[in-house]
Amino acid sequence: MSQFSYQLIAEDPKTSARAGILSTPHGDIETPVFMPVGTLATVKGLFPDQLKTAGIQILLGNTYHLALRPGAEIVEELGGLHQFMDWDRPILTDSGGFQVFSLAKLTKLTEKQVVFRSHIDGSILELSPEKAVRIQEQLGADCIMCLDECPPHDVEFGRMREAVDRTTAWAARCREAQVRDDQMLFGIVQGGTNQKLRERSVEGLLSHDFPGYAVGGLSVGESPEEMYKTLDFTVPGLPTDRPRYLMGVGTPRDLLESVSRGIDMFDCVMPTRNGRNAMAFTSDGSVKMRNAVHQRDERPLDAECDCPACTRYSRAYLRHLFMAKEMLGPILLSLHNIAFYQRLMRDLRSAILTGEVGEFVASRLARWGR
Amino acid sequence: MSQFSYQLIAEDPKTSARAGILSTPHGDIETPVFMPVGTLATVKGLFPDQLKTAGIQILLGNTYHLALRPGAEIVEELGGLHQFMDWDRPILTDSGGFQVFSLAKLTKLTEKQVVFRSHIDGSILELSPEKAVRIQEQLGADCIMCLDECPPHDVEFGRMREAVDRTTAWAARCREAQVRDDQMLFGIVQGGTNQKLRERSVEGLLSHDFPGYAVGGLSVGESPEEMYKTLDFTVPGLPTDRPRYLMGVGTPRDLLESVSRGIDMFDCVMPTRNGRNAMAFTSDGSVKMRNAVHQRDERPLDAECDCPACTRYSRAYLRHLFMAKEMLGPILLSLHNIAFYQRLMRDLRSAILTGEVGEFVASRLARWGR
Repeated sequence: MSQFSYQLIAEDPKTSARAGILSTPHGDIETPVFMPVGTLATVKGLFPDQLKTAGIQILLGNTYHLALRPGAEIVEELGGLHQFMDWDRPILTDSGGFQVFSLAKLTKLTEKQVVFRSHIDGSILELSPEKAVRIQEQLGADCIMCLDECPPHDVEFGRMREAVDRTTAWAARCREAQVRDDQMLFGIVQGGTNQKLRERSVEGLLSHDFPGYAVGGLSVGESPEEMYKTLDFTVPGLPTDRPRYLMGVGTPRDLLESVSRGIDMFDCVMPTRNGRNAMAFTSDGSVKMRNAVHQRDERPLDAECDCPACTRYSRAYLRHLFMAKEMLGPILLSLHNIAFYQRLMRDLRSAILTGEVGEFVASRLARWGR
Repeated sequence: MSQFSYQLIAEDPKTSARAGILSTPHGDIETPVFMPVGTLATVKGLFPDQLKTAGIQILLGNTYHLALRPGAEIVEELGGLHQFMDWDRPILTDSGGFQVFSLAKLTKLTEKQVVFRSHIDGSILELSPEKAVRIQEQLGADCIMCLDECPPHDVEFGRMREAVDRTTAWAARCREAQVRDDQMLFGIVQGGTNQKLRERSVEGLLSHDFPGYAVGGLSVGESPEEMYKTLDFTVPGLPTDRPRYLMGVGTPRDLLESVSRGIDMFDCVMPTRNGRNAMAFTSDGSVKMRNAVHQRDERPLDAECDCPACTRYSRAYLRHLFMAKEMLGPILLSLHNIAFYQRLMRDLRSAILTGEVGEFVASRLARWGR
């Protein structure tokens, strides 16, 4: 019997939003879900216990980064990613494809594989569909991804079609290469913002019957409206009984708009990266923590939030930490932003269960000033 | 009735080590005690709860830094240092004297006050005994310090005597300036490594009957042996019914040697600063965490330690965090080193209670390879 499954629990009557339960060897995940990014086997500055207290159900790890440092073999030797980083809940790893095409210097791309230079030491490395699966089997995440080709969003049609077809061919090889049966392999839909190519990509993947489908190549330079439109013509082609993961997205608004279009899973560095840079998401919109207006402000950052930054400290203290370049500032704001995203997804799921997604989304967007 | 007291509980029969209880408005402290440094109203990278779990009883805050950022008035407005930084156990603040004479650029030193330039923005500021007390009353720590003059340890005799006499005169003015009765004011003994000057300093302070005495001007360039010798002829002159605080010290060995000579309180940036720089104190001596020898080491950093770094992670993971420049590395090693210092003081106190300090110190020094 399979060690993972996706169960559809509820569908909002007026939007395409849906609630589900994704079961994995490391526990169940209530969807829609946001996954904080733990690139190098750590969510920057935070303890696993703090993430659990915030309600986080699943983390993302980056295969490209982990393969370079400390190396997949070392992680495997040390018991796999869960044990290595002391996280006993589910983990998803990406394939490394996106990073190879964005961070690394590409040297050669063929049907067989992609050859690139490490962004750390310039050494020449190869990544093939088989190798991407092998590395992810060594890391041992619950959800793993097929290797995809991620061209810039604005390449011309022919080049984008080539990337779609290569991604489809590589997906078949990933499916074939998989040895472990306790990892849920996701196929990745590419095709930029072009409807024909997205449909071609979905069609190519469906024949391999993946247990999960990801939408890649979005939030890479196109406008939010183009992204939402792309979801409008892409998501309906995906099977309803499989989880749908929108990779690398996004803003709080992106999450609301994308869940409304049928997406179940998200990851993004925004809550942690913005937190480290003194930008907080709050119930009333975003707050720049270094702003002088907070200097003597005794109030909490967000009175509706139950995270340590909001229940234990004043805005004045949080500002002080950033002005004094104290580590606790980035730590507290990262934790707060993760708690904000988590609460947003929890409340959105409740709205799905009661069939009030439209009202929920409208009221949040209005409150954030959109 | 006074809101603070020092109660002598036990004296080791063969050394000058002693155990006591220091009572403050924010609770009792078992001495000898080590105080982690929270310069800017935060122990770098750590949550108050993590410090409590490690058993920390009292923190130190730096008056000079806090007066510059965020400013003593702002801290007072926000309820004082305890509330500002969410620490409800005792706090000690220094007077700012040491920082003025080391970090800032001195412009004028008179009997009245010291004029200096801020190390942050170059603005010209003044610190007098009265102002040092006033600022510390605004910050609201449980233990506060007299303003002292801290010349380099190797100045000639006449210059050092001048500093001793100024420190004594300033101590009298600090005692006089104190308005709040819920803060324990410590006089500071100066005099470098010179016996005559240390005795002169002690004598000058005793007439003002301070509730606590600090030994300043040590661990500033002299050898450990010179420091221990200075304690040998300084500490016996201090009253037995008052706590004795050795400022800015030190290594684990320094703590053992100094407690053996009758010191009750310590503060030092070493556990946190070294931790941030990948150096860990362990039961078997110090460990450099970036060393390649740890790359595949599944063992904990210190099998005898119950801190999160040691109970949850492998040496390989800790090394990975430092190699990848991940914040969690400095955080975990700071916490570990603080837990190490705390456990050392707790065990040392037990040895005092059973009259076995000599054996305890000898066995620890042997194990650390001294």
